[in-house]
Amino acid sequence: MNYEITQVPERTAKPRESGFTMAMDKGLSLREAENFVEVSGEFVDIVKLGWATSYVTPNLDKKIAIFHEAGIPVYFGGTLFEAFIVRGQFDDYRRLLDKYNLSYAEVSDGSIDMDHELKCKYIRTLAEQVTVLSEVGSKDAEKIIPPYKWISLMQAELDAGAWKVIGESREAGNVGLFRSTGEVRSGLVEEILTKIPFEKIIWEAPQKAQQVFFIKLLGANVNLGNIAPNEIIPLETIRLGLRGDTFSHFLDTKSLEKLV
Amino acid sequence: MNYEITQVPERTAKPRESGFTMAMDKGLSLREAENFVEVSGEFVDIVKLGWATSYVTPNLDKKIAIFHEAGIPVYFGGTLFEAFIVRGQFDDYRRLLDKYNLSYAEVSDGSIDMDHELKCKYIRTLAEQVTVLSEVGSKDAEKIIPPYKWISLMQAELDAGAWKVIGESREAGNVGLFRSTGEVRSGLVEEILTKIPFEKIIWEAPQKAQQVFFIKLLGANVNLGNIAPNEIIPLETIRLGLRGDTFSHFLDTKSLEKLV
Amino acid sequence: MNYEITQVPERTAKPRESGFTMAMDKGLSLREAENFVEVSGEFVDIVKLGWATSYVTPNLDKKIAIFHEAGIPVYFGGTLFEAFIVRGQFDDYRRLLDKYNLSYAEVSDGSIDMDHELKCKYIRTLAEQVTVLSEVGSKDAEKIIPPYKWISLMQAELDAGAWKVIGESREAGNVGLFRSTGEVRSGLVEEILTKIPFEKIIWEAPQKAQQVFFIKLLGANVNLGNIAPNEIIPLETIRLGLRGDTFSHFLDTKSLEKLV
Repeated sequence: MNYEITQVPERTAKPRESGFTMAMDKGLSLREAENFVEVSGEFVDIVKLGWATSYVTPNLDKKIAIFHEAGIPVYFGGTLFEAFIVRGQFDDYRRLLDKYNLSYAEVSDGSIDMDHELKCKYIRTLAEQVTVLSEVGSKDAEKIIPPYKWISLMQAELDAGAWKVIGESREAGNVGLFRSTGEVRSGLVEEILTKIPFEKIIWEAPQKAQQVFFIKLLGANVNLGNIAPNEIIPLETIRLGLRGDTFSHFLDTKSLEKLV
Repeated sequence: MNYEITQVPERTAKPRESGFTMAMDKGLSLREAENFVEVSGEFVDIVKLGWATSYVTPNLDKKIAIFHEAGIPVYFGGTLFEAFIVRGQFDDYRRLLDKYNLSYAEVSDGSIDMDHELKCKYIRTLAEQVTVLSEVGSKDAEKIIPPYKWISLMQAELDAGAWKVIGESREAGNVGLFRSTGEVRSGLVEEILTKIPFEKIIWEAPQKAQQVFFIKLLGANVNLGNIAPNEIIPLETIRLGLRGDTFSHFLDTKSLEKLV
Repeated sequence: MNYEITQVPERTAKPRESGFTMAMDKGLSLREAENFVEVSGEFVDIVKLGWATSYVTPNLDKKIAIFHEAGIPVYFGGTLFEAFIVRGQFDDYRRLLDKYNLSYAEVSDGSIDMDHELKCKYIRTLAEQVTVLSEVGSKDAEKIIPPYKWISLMQAELDAGAWKVIGESREAGNVGLFRSTGEVRSGLVEEILTKIPFEKIIWEAPQKAQQVFFIKLLGANVNLGNIAPNEIIPLETIRLGLRGDTFSHFLDTKSLEKLV
């Protein structure tokens, strides 16, 4: 940090089990990836190449190399996994992970209809090759999953070998954990937390109000994902109680008295 | 493309008559223009320098050169044409196109009140100098043009020598083809398509839901415009059925069965 | 400007007392800061490092140097001032301004509850060290300040030595001067202007409709703030009547007749 301020919550250090930030790259150029690493590299634990953007982005191997040299792992968005699965190309997908030297992969079923036993089998198989992030929740706003089901799906996927589970929200933050307005399904979140340890969950929270909700509920070191590259620095200030939204949250009572 | 996936719709190749993407630059720096060309150059058919941003952007000639060297034509937004016309400076405008070595120009009347005969005369005159894109639709949300009028205006402008006609939406996608909420006027679109060939129309569709609407209606190779530079890669994945929104659209029925 | 257009309102030149544009940097990299200066340097009078982003942004001294070499002063967002004040670290804050060679500072109370006498005392003290911008308005959407109070606060802060006063809106433009929808509290603005000279006020106006409101009300040379880096060129065209929104505003009556 550039200077000293008191009463700032302690952040975990890399490699982080909690306080983890996942950024979403939806098509950065090489220089933009370098800019991103310069400013936000310290605060980003992993980069997701959003959905199947890796299929069309030029210079993919060079971009992955920029992140890897900065010590930031990269993985393909779950939609790419699903695109291979639905086409019967799982073996191609496994080879693709090796081709790009990736050590993380996402298993999801946000756009496909897949038996949960089969999803867990994919998690088990991929977990022998890479660290698996599995995602729960549909991209279809009309498919509402009740809280007890979120819990049982998450638990089964962790049992199958997922390192962490991701709560779905899309790039826009308007499905899954959230209502179409972006409002958090707070009852759902609280019920999930009665059963699943908070450090095992990455909450996709692209909107500022969503990030603020989770930080106020779970503290500076909650795991958050789908953060746009230019929102990493703002998010870090929210975690530290240094933006208006969480300004008072980490201060002691005396500091909050009226200044006269 | 970086790897093989089956059941991906075939895209047209440059120079494209359909499947055309028009990007909007509203003030990129030289390095940002280079970044853009690196990532999105293959997928962009033409760059519009939005409205009159070219009046104030520094290094204009160098920026145009970056796009031209990448084989991407550049044109000034229609509002600049209108700004010259309303001031009686049409000859200055024609000289300006030559000064910057531009081979495309837009003729529009989104902010001015102009007799349609006169608009068509400008199209005819400019068509002797450059390839003309003409735009139909007002930037004023309260000026609703009925569908039969859209059709007759578009047909007259094509007859006058416009290469393609553009459906107005503004940078925000909230007028013309769309309601103030961004929702597509789908009846209008369908009625236009009964009379005007789809490859002659460029639909301004800056919002993702608008792009998805047109791709579902008209396929991967619909002409779309007013795409922000950092949305070109995402749009390409939507065209290819590789983002959640169109994930199932291009798949054969068998692929869509529940995976067990 | 790159070419000649008639009937364009005259803009003030640097150093500007009115027609002033304040940009908000919320975490640009060094190269992004250079890109910004290349394109928008001429049109930006001062850069705010938003709230406490300067605490976490790497290469802070080098970034400030890029702006200073371009002749653009830099200051820390008011939330950082408040973060030091609430912790009893005012002397540290004063040293920080010197450490980074800053000649401007903001005094605000958007996130804290502070006696207004004390706020004015901070303005007086800092005015001996730097040029002070003071901000009126709460970041809390529920704290509504009536117009007569805005006026008396602004006047007292100018009397205490503030160079200009800023009307609060946040990065999103949804508090203070604006309703939660972003709509301008136009009655408030008009009442303020009956008492405070317009050149002494910087209106935070991050949304386009807000910028258009102020330019239509107060002309091309109104002072505007919280402008995102990639919106500086668009804003300049709005000031000059060269975007649809203000296209007719600066034209003489004859130009506005129907073209035939």
